Amino acid sequence: MRTIDWNDGSNSIVMIDQTLLPMEYRVIECRTLASLCEAIRSLRVRGAPALGAAGAFGIALAATLSSADNMDELTRDLKVAAKTIKATRPTAVNLAWAVNRTIDAISDAYDPDGIRDIVLAEAKNIADEDILKNKKLGKYGAMLLEDGDTVMTHCNAGRMACVDWGTALGVIRSAVEAGKQIRVMACETRPLNQGGRITTWELMQDNIDVTLICDSMSGHVMRRGMVDKVIVGADRITGDAVFNKIGTYTLSVLAKEHEIPFYVAAPISTFDPDNWEENVTIEQRDANELRFFRDVQIAPAEVKVYNPAFDATPMENVTAVITEKGVFYPPFLLDEIIV
Amino acid sequence: MRTIDWNDGSNSIVMIDQTLLPMEYRVIECRTLASLCEAIRSLRVRGAPALGAAGAFGIALAATLSSADNMDELTRDLKVAAKTIKATRPTAVNLAWAVNRTIDAISDAYDPDGIRDIVLAEAKNIADEDILKNKKLGKYGAMLLEDGDTVMTHCNAGRMACVDWGTALGVIRSAVEAGKQIRVMACETRPLNQGGRITTWELMQDNIDVTLICDSMSGHVMRRGMVDKVIVGADRITGDAVFNKIGTYTLSVLAKEHEIPFYVAAPISTFDPDNWEENVTIEQRDANELRFFRDVQIAPAEVKVYNPAFDATPMENVTAVITEKGVFYPPFLLDEIIV
Repeated sequence: MRTIDWNDGSNSIVMIDQTLLPMEYRVIECRTLASLCEAIRSLRVRGAPALGAAGAFGIALAATLSSADNMDELTRDLKVAAKTIKATRPTAVNLAWAVNRTIDAISDAYDPDGIRDIVLAEAKNIADEDILKNKKLGKYGAMLLEDGDTVMTHCNAGRMACVDWGTALGVIRSAVEAGKQIRVMACETRPLNQGGRITTWELMQDNIDVTLICDSMSGHVMRRGMVDKVIVGADRITGDAVFNKIGTYTLSVLAKEHEIPFYVAAPISTFDPDNWEENVTIEQRDANELRFFRDVQIAPAEVKVYNPAFDATPMENVTAVITEKGVFYPPFLLDEIIV
Repeated sequence: MRTIDWNDGSNSIVMIDQTLLPMEYRVIECRTLASLCEAIRSLRVRGAPALGAAGAFGIALAATLSSADNMDELTRDLKVAAKTIKATRPTAVNLAWAVNRTIDAISDAYDPDGIRDIVLAEAKNIADEDILKNKKLGKYGAMLLEDGDTVMTHCNAGRMACVDWGTALGVIRSAVEAGKQIRVMACETRPLNQGGRITTWELMQDNIDVTLICDSMSGHVMRRGMVDKVIVGADRITGDAVFNKIGTYTLSVLAKEHEIPFYVAAPISTFDPDNWEENVTIEQRDANELRFFRDVQIAPAEVKVYNPAFDATPMENVTAVITEKGVFYPPFLLDEIIV
């Protein structure tokens, strides 16, 4: 199944609960906006493109649940829902992008049920388009990989970060599909181990060769010549920086030091071209993510913790950005890319 | 109590079991060479200087346990014990250094009981000297720190890595003792979390301000100007490189990128000046260290893992080496330092 989808039978959102992977594969159903927001905040669904689909389906869910019988009231309900959904995670831009696009679609409706039909159709479009974009992006990116390459990646920018296929891992899947032998070096990605839990699991399911390392080993393996390219996803690309999972910036510095190409794979919906690093809020997450692993204590219970979810990689550390519209090299004229 | 010590009452080695910290503080006793070797291999005792004391006390323990009644036989027994102990961990040079020094002391003995007395006295000297050296080293290093500095450190090069006081954390303790306000940023140090578990615990016990971060956050906090200096310990310093806990090299590259001084604090016994990086074996540890945290699964049980315990930082990334003989800057003429 897709990472996240709409269930027409029960008018609800279904998703794979990513907090349990790879130990348990469980599909959960969100029948209320509150349960969707909880799922987003707890990272049951995560990854910028998947969050886009989650946000869009959230508007469709709100439309289904609203008892409003006139257009103004329903529109008001959906705008409140939009605000609630967008507040769950401030850094990923795709969430807001997809919510806004779904809300904007309302203008084509003539009555409340028209709104309901249109927002659901738009959400389904967003999900379908995500897969198409990733396949296109994957084909462009695959041309950058050579047979026999070992690609380092961080966090999970794979099928489970999108509706399907993946961005960074989509590039790898497309290269493998084109007959190239690609090995992946997956960074564990503390504190929530999306690399260790999800990227490894995804790639093993597809029989793609993957080796797990700790985040701190990245410099050592690059120095030893064990890495040919780095590909990561993105949560937001401003005019001057790529926001992605914490640890991405460290990899970009190491890649530069070792003259290893550092690629960012992301759909155009990740771009926020008129914005700048200094204006973006980096989400700070709960200190207990570093004090406990599930229920197991791993540090003093009262220790001070600094736990940003993302970091910013300046564009000068990026070799190229891989999108569904092609591969872009510096200078990154985002406005021209988006047009 | 000291991290590791000799118990005269029971003729055994006592140590704090570091695998349980900070959740449990348990003192264990090694009455056989097998239990000592298990403790070293499982990292119940770890840290290069503490391993030196462990190795020396191991020879004393072997001498106590041996029933040999002539010098040749006892010497043979101790040489076998020396080989067994040195094989437990190949990278840290202090272990071999202390074992060899204890064995060399035998030459002053006239009879088997003289050997027994001499090796025990020598082991106790090594332990006592370790503390004195760390205090000296700490004083030299403290002069490099300014009031208000935030110091990043990796793994645990503290009291628990030595007999007492510490190397990298010894420098911080000495600076605090001299009245400077120092904040510490402790990297978690995957996969065994010595930074998250032990460094934080040690510093909190001493009321030194410490903040825990994930290893991957190191670049981000440096870029944000949150780090003034980096100080790490060392397991072996060859003519061309510093071997230390995996992740050290990554920090050295990041420090260079951000023009942050990168200091290595280690006693002279860590130096292996006639040796070169290419000849040093880097210990590979069990893959399950990345698949499980204690009994909790954190990655696919069958995932391929690369798990080197150490990495090598080339001397050109090191700002200075802090020893009990002073602070040394490039070019590092190790032979001259040791004389």
